[in-house]
Amino acid sequence: MSEKLNRLKEILGEVSDLNRASSVLGWDQQVNMPPGGAEARGLQLATLGKIAQEKFTADEVGILIEDLKKEFPDPQTDEGAMIRVTARTYDKAKRVPPEFVAEQAVAATKGVEAWVEAKQKSDFSIFRPHLEKHVELVKKYVSFFPPAAHPYDVLLDDFEPGLPTADVLEIFGSLRPKQVALIKAISEAKQVKSRFLNKSFNEKKVWNFSENIITKFGYDFKRGRQDKAPHPFETTFSMNDVRITNRFEKNAPLATLFSAMHECGHALYELGGNPAYERTPLAGGTSLAVHESQSRMWENLVGRSLPFWEHFYPQLKKTFPSQLEGVNVKTFYKAVNRVEPSLIRVNADEATYNLHIMLRLEIEIGMVDGSIQVRDLPGIWNAKMRDYLGITPPNDAQGVLQDIHWSYGAVGYFSTYALGNIVSAQLWEKINKEIKNLEEQIRKGQFAELREWLRVNIHQYGHKYDPADLVRKITGQGIDSAAYVRYLTKKYSDVYGL
Amino acid sequence: MSEKLNRLKEILGEVSDLNRASSVLGWDQQVNMPPGGAEARGLQLATLGKIAQEKFTADEVGILIEDLKKEFPDPQTDEGAMIRVTARTYDKAKRVPPEFVAEQAVAATKGVEAWVEAKQKSDFSIFRPHLEKHVELVKKYVSFFPPAAHPYDVLLDDFEPGLPTADVLEIFGSLRPKQVALIKAISEAKQVKSRFLNKSFNEKKVWNFSENIITKFGYDFKRGRQDKAPHPFETTFSMNDVRITNRFEKNAPLATLFSAMHECGHALYELGGNPAYERTPLAGGTSLAVHESQSRMWENLVGRSLPFWEHFYPQLKKTFPSQLEGVNVKTFYKAVNRVEPSLIRVNADEATYNLHIMLRLEIEIGMVDGSIQVRDLPGIWNAKMRDYLGITPPNDAQGVLQDIHWSYGAVGYFSTYALGNIVSAQLWEKINKEIKNLEEQIRKGQFAELREWLRVNIHQYGHKYDPADLVRKITGQGIDSAAYVRYLTKKYSDVYGL
Repeated sequence: MSEKLNRLKEILGEVSDLNRASSVLGWDQQVNMPPGGAEARGLQLATLGKIAQEKFTADEVGILIEDLKKEFPDPQTDEGAMIRVTARTYDKAKRVPPEFVAEQAVAATKGVEAWVEAKQKSDFSIFRPHLEKHVELVKKYVSFFPPAAHPYDVLLDDFEPGLPTADVLEIFGSLRPKQVALIKAISEAKQVKSRFLNKSFNEKKVWNFSENIITKFGYDFKRGRQDKAPHPFETTFSMNDVRITNRFEKNAPLATLFSAMHECGHALYELGGNPAYERTPLAGGTSLAVHESQSRMWENLVGRSLPFWEHFYPQLKKTFPSQLEGVNVKTFYKAVNRVEPSLIRVNADEATYNLHIMLRLEIEIGMVDGSIQVRDLPGIWNAKMRDYLGITPPNDAQGVLQDIHWSYGAVGYFSTYALGNIVSAQLWEKINKEIKNLEEQIRKGQFAELREWLRVNIHQYGHKYDPADLVRKITGQGIDSAAYVRYLTKKYSDVYGL
Repeated sequence: MSEKLNRLKEILGEVSDLNRASSVLGWDQQVNMPPGGAEARGLQLATLGKIAQEKFTADEVGILIEDLKKEFPDPQTDEGAMIRVTARTYDKAKRVPPEFVAEQAVAATKGVEAWVEAKQKSDFSIFRPHLEKHVELVKKYVSFFPPAAHPYDVLLDDFEPGLPTADVLEIFGSLRPKQVALIKAISEAKQVKSRFLNKSFNEKKVWNFSENIITKFGYDFKRGRQDKAPHPFETTFSMNDVRITNRFEKNAPLATLFSAMHECGHALYELGGNPAYERTPLAGGTSLAVHESQSRMWENLVGRSLPFWEHFYPQLKKTFPSQLEGVNVKTFYKAVNRVEPSLIRVNADEATYNLHIMLRLEIEIGMVDGSIQVRDLPGIWNAKMRDYLGITPPNDAQGVLQDIHWSYGAVGYFSTYALGNIVSAQLWEKINKEIKNLEEQIRKGQFAELREWLRVNIHQYGHKYDPADLVRKITGQGIDSAAYVRYLTKKYSDVYGL
């Protein structure tokens, strides 16, 4: 093998080790760390991040990349793909001066602090100057890059490489009226029963049930674990140590099951990677949207389907006989698919979720291109909520202040959540063409063929293909919402008898 | 403040961050990691270690040290002490070539693997070539340093800076006959009752009791936590995140209590540090022996004393009424101080423990100076066991293969375990002169004054003073076993009516 390639892989391997060490420290922070540990942990993470950045942006890396581009010009080969992906990330990293990264880190820390207080007091004015600072920094970040069709393209590209803002707006533009119409039809139908979901469920039993489900999905507890944390997330320390977290909320006890399925979907992507890609930039999922397509598929297309509950409901009922007394599987299935426009994105159902995302995307684009001023945000937020969901937040805490993302200056990735939903439905149609009896398998609690299909067609490729290319490679088309509309319409016709 | 000092502290801070990140990864490996994670974790730890070493041994560090030695010549000041300690460690690190470190790491991995198999099969010949390799490497390591009075001095100095082998041999030499005589006297006395300690105790109750004890000692669960691991240990992520691990063994259920006290002793040392020393080489304990003096003090001088159990035994009896039925506090106290020569060091009682250490020290010194050949080890081991403890291991697994240390090439620190015992008794005499009613306080479950004494006189100094200097500063004498002999004699006269 090329000596230069070996040297590049050696450096990239060290960068990967540093980043994954940071992931371990971050996981520990959420799962185990006593409060006293916070200050030092922040410094440790900053040091690891700084060294990883220094190592990756060293001039030697740039020279190796240029030489290797000539040696491995074909991006269809693993080596060529690795050089391509590395070159893109390197180019981006080199454009952003370290002092800017440091300035952003300081603004992020201050922003989160202010946001916590602002949300507590439901007072946007406390957070406003920090968000204004973030918008200024985001614009500065964009200025480091060559002019794009829209300045937001630069931000989006960090999460969805190769997908322009215009495409996302087009995808969302065609979806929005259909989704709004669907919600309207549902709101006129008879609401489904679901009060039994709010009864008291034993935490340990729910937790065990969640592990029972994801074990059947194929989550391997020899290569991962599920721990309690304030928020559910998936984190990767290597393709053989992929952990998930979960929580238990008394007012929504069975949400734990769906969170486990969601995070398991992310985890299976990472667990299904190509061992040869480990410690290189090809490891992991190709984009946030494709990653989210996996989590949403296991959570929603599998986990909120009737066949799924035809398999699991008898066990669930046996585990919670008094809570589910008199509730049959169809009633239960309808209940976990209940639609109700609500204020908070993270609690939103499948029908309304994407509208929460579109609202945020439009506001982000407006902030970046200057058509929306930060001071006007609360009013704009509330107006859009009325427009899309027909409800008005009673205060900023339940409105514009609800999400943490903007508090640390993260702008550009909300749309990937909705794109993940859209892609999941496109993949699902394709899978059902190739696995004819998939529904039947799910009804029997068999998930191996589905998981293997995802591994072969998606997981094993890691970052090799850009998201849109991967979707095209599999489905023959670009990212498109038609399949998602078909899926939602079919499901809600069934649940609400539309 | 000096610009150069700031720059040095910046570099040392990053080195500290890297090392503490490694500690987090190591802790996770023992406490949480699924088996699949092992391979990648090894690479991550190697990378962090390598980068920390590179950063610390950079020429810039050497130049800064030389300049700062002139600027801060007084080692009694914090700055001067930091320069002194940093200079010593730097000088050592520079002498050892990176290729040697890498060679040793490979030998360590192979050695541990071979040792596991050898121990399982109780076959020393499987481990022998690996130990021979380690001895060769240890000799090579010694050769990087200026000639010392004894080659073992170089190894010992890494753990007990400033303490020559001759001093340790003298300390042990004067202790050994007295300890052997004491054991002989005990063996002729009537053995104490202790069968009730082997009854079945509920794990969760024992665990909770251990946390109840260490909370009273002053272990702050907002700045630490106790987790289950295969072996008890203490690890420091910052002076505000100091964690301990523990285990529960069915055949020695109450050992969990003493392990918790032991690790808590280590933890209090780290928790009691000087905040100004954080992220510098002055943070942490000054040596392994002084660290061990703290753990052994809380475990033995406090935790195996009669006043201690006069306080805690009523609660223990209430927690385990059936197991402790008919056992009064004096009987219980005697049972947890039972002496019985045994094969395994980690299970040894206070009276015989040091003899296990002396045996290992003598063998290590012999291997290093060439007077003992690895091939002869099993025979020498068994002969010394007969000599010192009057028992013969039935096989190598319970003899020469019992400890893991040599398997990864660690030679030089067994003696610190015994030195810790010795120092703990010296400190204890001094403390009891200064806190007149300490026994009375312990009988009331009050440990604040003791803990505070240790913090003020020992913990807050971190690495500032070398171990022998610190002991002299506190007690007015060097490390000396007389106090330890007085302590053992008094305790066993009481327990065995000698």
